[in-house]
Amino acid sequence: MGKTTSPIRIALTAGDPFGIGPEVALEASRELPGAEVTLYGDPDRLEGAARLVPVPVEGEPPDAPKPSEAGGRASLEALRRAVEDILAGRQDILATAPISKRSWAPAGASWTGHTTYLAQACGVQEPLMSFVWDEAEPVVALLTTHVPLRAVASNLTSARVERAVRRLHTALVERFRRPRARIGVLGLNPHAGEEGLVGTEEVDFIVPAIQRLRAAGLEVTGPLPGDSAFAHRRRFDGLLALYHDQGLGPVKALAFDRAVNTTLALPFVRTSPAHGTAFDLAGTGRADPTSMRAALEWAVRLAR
Amino acid sequence: MGKTTSPIRIALTAGDPFGIGPEVALEASRELPGAEVTLYGDPDRLEGAARLVPVPVEGEPPDAPKPSEAGGRASLEALRRAVEDILAGRQDILATAPISKRSWAPAGASWTGHTTYLAQACGVQEPLMSFVWDEAEPVVALLTTHVPLRAVASNLTSARVERAVRRLHTALVERFRRPRARIGVLGLNPHAGEEGLVGTEEVDFIVPAIQRLRAAGLEVTGPLPGDSAFAHRRRFDGLLALYHDQGLGPVKALAFDRAVNTTLALPFVRTSPAHGTAFDLAGTGRADPTSMRAALEWAVRLAR
Repeated sequence: MGKTTSPIRIALTAGDPFGIGPEVALEASRELPGAEVTLYGDPDRLEGAARLVPVPVEGEPPDAPKPSEAGGRASLEALRRAVEDILAGRQDILATAPISKRSWAPAGASWTGHTTYLAQACGVQEPLMSFVWDEAEPVVALLTTHVPLRAVASNLTSARVERAVRRLHTALVERFRRPRARIGVLGLNPHAGEEGLVGTEEVDFIVPAIQRLRAAGLEVTGPLPGDSAFAHRRRFDGLLALYHDQGLGPVKALAFDRAVNTTLALPFVRTSPAHGTAFDLAGTGRADPTSMRAALEWAVRLAR
Repeated sequence: MGKTTSPIRIALTAGDPFGIGPEVALEASRELPGAEVTLYGDPDRLEGAARLVPVPVEGEPPDAPKPSEAGGRASLEALRRAVEDILAGRQDILATAPISKRSWAPAGASWTGHTTYLAQACGVQEPLMSFVWDEAEPVVALLTTHVPLRAVASNLTSARVERAVRRLHTALVERFRRPRARIGVLGLNPHAGEEGLVGTEEVDFIVPAIQRLRAAGLEVTGPLPGDSAFAHRRRFDGLLALYHDQGLGPVKALAFDRAVNTTLALPFVRTSPAHGTAFDLAGTGRADPTSMRAALEWAVRLAR
């Protein structure tokens, strides 16, 4: 007797209506095995969608594809409705096409992006932005995200490193089915500080955090030099980078079209492509749906 | 009538005698077409070298392969002699196996590595550490190197960005034979600051530097977001990263075994492998000479 599995219900927000979000979302959502995708966005831009929650653009549209208050309001409203449906049990998973912070700001939104919006909507203190691209590659998490480089060091504490590793560990075991959960923690400074010769944060609080985690039985290694950590990445199930470009530079160099952003520590699975709104490509027919498609495929994989 | 070319004379320093330098240098220097390689280092560790300038280890050797004053003194002395021979015209090119800063420090050396030593020895104010790995890939230069992350931002100025781009431009045209010299300059902050939303250094002085360079006729683009710059790297002949891991994380993720370190703005060509002393591998027979060999092959290519 075969087992029947009901399809995963994916709420897919189309992102900024004037970016490439609607076109890549529409294209990527066609015929996704094991899933029922509902698009949330402007019906004018999502014609032909199998399932649609219409969120029309209201107010003055911009004169060309670019950030706008109208785009910000529409993308926020689509996100609000999708999250509402998930939290009410009407959808299982969230997938998001790109929004623009420069549209959200004039629309009165203070969040720095999807990740911080979702954390607040779900009452989560420290969501963990992370990236995946291949089952044989580590999950790469970022401890800090949209922080100016000069403020990164003062945003870090030993407790924060420890909490992030524990969250990554839980996600690796429970969501990614990698029970060994070998985690590498990158250092902050060049060559991971060379034992205090080039910066002291490693000695002061990163090494102590790693020692506490190891004493608690987690398989944690580091601090790894940020330059070579990704050359040895297959030794790990997860890597914790301490800041945005330290993790995402290597990830996008290796897997620009395939890398998928997934937020850990939320009560549901959320994925998105790793690219942005690409206003300059909107409507030209040159937008590539590969990364959005990968985000949907990973959503299905992670929800099983 | 054929043209005869005399072989390039390469001075190859064996690096820290207790790291993997001597073994990879010896192995990589065998049968290098177009070159005559002279090894500078401890005769006990370089047995079988075709040409040798002996620099014996003096003083107490360490009890195991690890940093030591004796290793620091020997590697400094080999470097001193090799540079002396190049500046006197007895050698053409410098190739260096890895040294250890933790050996140099007890030996009384204050340089942070080969690059700063060579700059002082040659009277060069701002040497530019850079990396190459393939003719079809950009040369990647680092504006700052062994600086703690929290001090990177305050180490940058508009004039320094401008000078580094000009040096990279000169090297691309004169040394790398890439006359178009299309250069991408990375931003400092996540997403290159998003026009001041995430850090102000781009608006304050990186964009002005780029504008002056463009006004002077250079083909310069940026600031490029550090996360995606390497995904689009083949649009450029050179990339200027603003700090160590921003440039080297992607380079080593893409080409760990092949990447070669070459110092720009010196009066001679200098190359080295991108790896370190790897004391834990010394003498085990597991050290991989691939990167050292690539450094010698690039030395010959760049000297022609």
